[in-house]
Amino acid sequence: MHVQAAEIISVGTELLLGEIVDTNAPWLARELRDHGVPVFHKAVVGDNRGRLREAIALALGRSDLVIIGGGLGPTDDDLTREAIADALGETPQIDGRLLARLEELFRSRGRPMPAINRKQAWLIPSAEPLDNPIGTAYGWFVRWRGRSVVALPGPPHELQRMWREQVLPRLPRGQAGFWHQTLHTLGIGEGSVGEMLADFTNQRNPSVATYARRHGVDVRVAASAPDAEAARQAAAPVLAEVERRLAPFIWGRDEETIGLVLGRALSARQQTVAVAESFTGGLVADTLTDTPGASAWFRGGMIAYSPAAKIALGVPAALIERHGVVSEEVAGALATAVRARFETDWGLATTGVAGPAPLEGHPPGTTLVAVAGPDGLVVRRLGWPGERRQVKERATNGLLMLFLRRLRGDRQA
Amino acid sequence: MHVQAAEIISVGTELLLGEIVDTNAPWLARELRDHGVPVFHKAVVGDNRGRLREAIALALGRSDLVIIGGGLGPTDDDLTREAIADALGETPQIDGRLLARLEELFRSRGRPMPAINRKQAWLIPSAEPLDNPIGTAYGWFVRWRGRSVVALPGPPHELQRMWREQVLPRLPRGQAGFWHQTLHTLGIGEGSVGEMLADFTNQRNPSVATYARRHGVDVRVAASAPDAEAARQAAAPVLAEVERRLAPFIWGRDEETIGLVLGRALSARQQTVAVAESFTGGLVADTLTDTPGASAWFRGGMIAYSPAAKIALGVPAALIERHGVVSEEVAGALATAVRARFETDWGLATTGVAGPAPLEGHPPGTTLVAVAGPDGLVVRRLGWPGERRQVKERATNGLLMLFLRRLRGDRQA
Repeated sequence: MHVQAAEIISVGTELLLGEIVDTNAPWLARELRDHGVPVFHKAVVGDNRGRLREAIALALGRSDLVIIGGGLGPTDDDLTREAIADALGETPQIDGRLLARLEELFRSRGRPMPAINRKQAWLIPSAEPLDNPIGTAYGWFVRWRGRSVVALPGPPHELQRMWREQVLPRLPRGQAGFWHQTLHTLGIGEGSVGEMLADFTNQRNPSVATYARRHGVDVRVAASAPDAEAARQAAAPVLAEVERRLAPFIWGRDEETIGLVLGRALSARQQTVAVAESFTGGLVADTLTDTPGASAWFRGGMIAYSPAAKIALGVPAALIERHGVVSEEVAGALATAVRARFETDWGLATTGVAGPAPLEGHPPGTTLVAVAGPDGLVVRRLGWPGERRQVKERATNGLLMLFLRRLRGDRQA
Repeated sequence: MHVQAAEIISVGTELLLGEIVDTNAPWLARELRDHGVPVFHKAVVGDNRGRLREAIALALGRSDLVIIGGGLGPTDDDLTREAIADALGETPQIDGRLLARLEELFRSRGRPMPAINRKQAWLIPSAEPLDNPIGTAYGWFVRWRGRSVVALPGPPHELQRMWREQVLPRLPRGQAGFWHQTLHTLGIGEGSVGEMLADFTNQRNPSVATYARRHGVDVRVAASAPDAEAARQAAAPVLAEVERRLAPFIWGRDEETIGLVLGRALSARQQTVAVAESFTGGLVADTLTDTPGASAWFRGGMIAYSPAAKIALGVPAALIERHGVVSEEVAGALATAVRARFETDWGLATTGVAGPAPLEGHPPGTTLVAVAGPDGLVVRRLGWPGERRQVKERATNGLLMLFLRRLRGDRQA
């Protein structure tokens, strides 16, 4: 079997009101694309049983895989289960096994289960339940007249994990071969990447596409062929050439995070790191400690937000007086001091201006990053205007990319 | 006249593939909401003439205002004009006046107009052209059998400006007034909120709806009435009662962040805070320092990730040996030590297990948070299984909510 056409329905009045942007549908669309499943329609419907039933019936009339995101919570306006049952002419009933597991979940959290949650244990005859390892909303995998309806909870981390662990294994196999890889870059703009790859971005197969992301510019190389291995082989020479051209800027691929890549490099050397953050306010440490196993190589850090905190860490007061806190000198002193304080191989530091107000006459976005290591100190001045959060993110990314380049021994670092 | 129901159709294969997130539809939805126009459906269709015609015909069958974004460019896969004409049974023709203005536009840029652009001067008998002051794509305002179809170009700055300048003045007046406010809560599940508000969530006007978010459960109170002030007055008693029932859990409303609310409370008292983070790894400090002006009340922090870093901050080694790092005692000692070290009014601390591996026999999700202040020390044990990032976020939220309750003098804190 083979999915001919998939359709995505996102449920929620808050989506119709524009109060939140639907990130689930684009995420699911990319997943379907990457598995070679064509998507021809996406719809958003509010928390309304009749309209949701109509949308499901319409989708079943033209698509053989219908994926519904949201509306599986416990409250009266969570109506996805009811609407699927209506569309299929089936009646939901409490499933004893699901109910027992739900009650056990609440018990383990030390709270009684509100009666309102009972409908999260509903099933219809055509539905198989999909486990939710991190929430109370089970999903449904419905098989009906040769078509499939998948219902997943709206919170993105629940939807994504259940899609990978529960839905993908249940989908019919035999899609055409498709292969792709995404390279993550930092320190180069999308326009420049586009110019460097112009001869590839015009091609359709293999295809090369660029996407501006918060963590830098992603470059996606994809190919289709009769089977996945042939697709991989078709993409290989293009991928190799893209990697060659962008080498200094590439920090990882696909699901990798920069914390994971840095942690791998540090673990291989049995080295450790500590951070001293001024205006990034904890974001560098937060980014690194999102990596499982970070305690093997991350010792800790200081958020030296005030001048007094910088002095307490070991930055000479005279240095701050002479150069100001937004200076190469203070960035370097912070990195050196935190490396000594935590007795690590590497010390990282940031100082600058997050905004919206200027500081010491420097505009928001002014960024200084420093890496102190066994082979000395490197300080870089970066800077882009932007909003407070953007400035913090770009400084964090800029620092971590500088660190990665030093670890790999790039000449630029 | 009065719009009963509006519908938004976004056009573009790149939206179906998830390669870009559709921001136009949420933006239009907010505009419609704020003008009291109900939206019941949103759809995304690729660059396919037949499917787009079907989507427009379906929308015209159930909505009296259909807004289409995208597909007005000059290329072969820009098919919105063709599909509207198909759906209405009309035939597009070049409009001499539009063509002359388009040619003049190209001339003024010093280029000849490519022949491909001629279709941007098309009109059908039911369509009035909408000027585009910043691009080559005219919009259409179509009046047909008492219904309206609006076609706008996809680039957001063009769509938004044309909506305000060209579409709004053409829409029928006399929409009802609309008023809404969203309350942010923490420390209570969506099921429990739903039960506490069951008598309201069944009502349609004023309406009360709940949404699970990363920062807690949001509760949205909305009302419509002949004008906005009447809507506000209709919502007021419901809002007051919702606030009364959920008071201990509410931390803010609408665009507020918890950092903003805490910063306001600290500034009012001229007090300061510092943080000592173990397993949250910088996220508490990062959350606080996302707030503009945070340097007025946030002094800094320690990320005491390793036991050695905890001892260096001032936690007695014997305490760690006796109780382990995942303990009430260490959480309290961290909060007290960081308060002393930074000489602040308040010291906040976290310790626990982010996962995926257990630590000292405690499962991932185990969370201890502490607030040391002028009136003593409070430590709480929280915990909720989940993925690493979720665990960090929930611990951060739990700590900041505990802190807010102490600042406001809640009895529970």
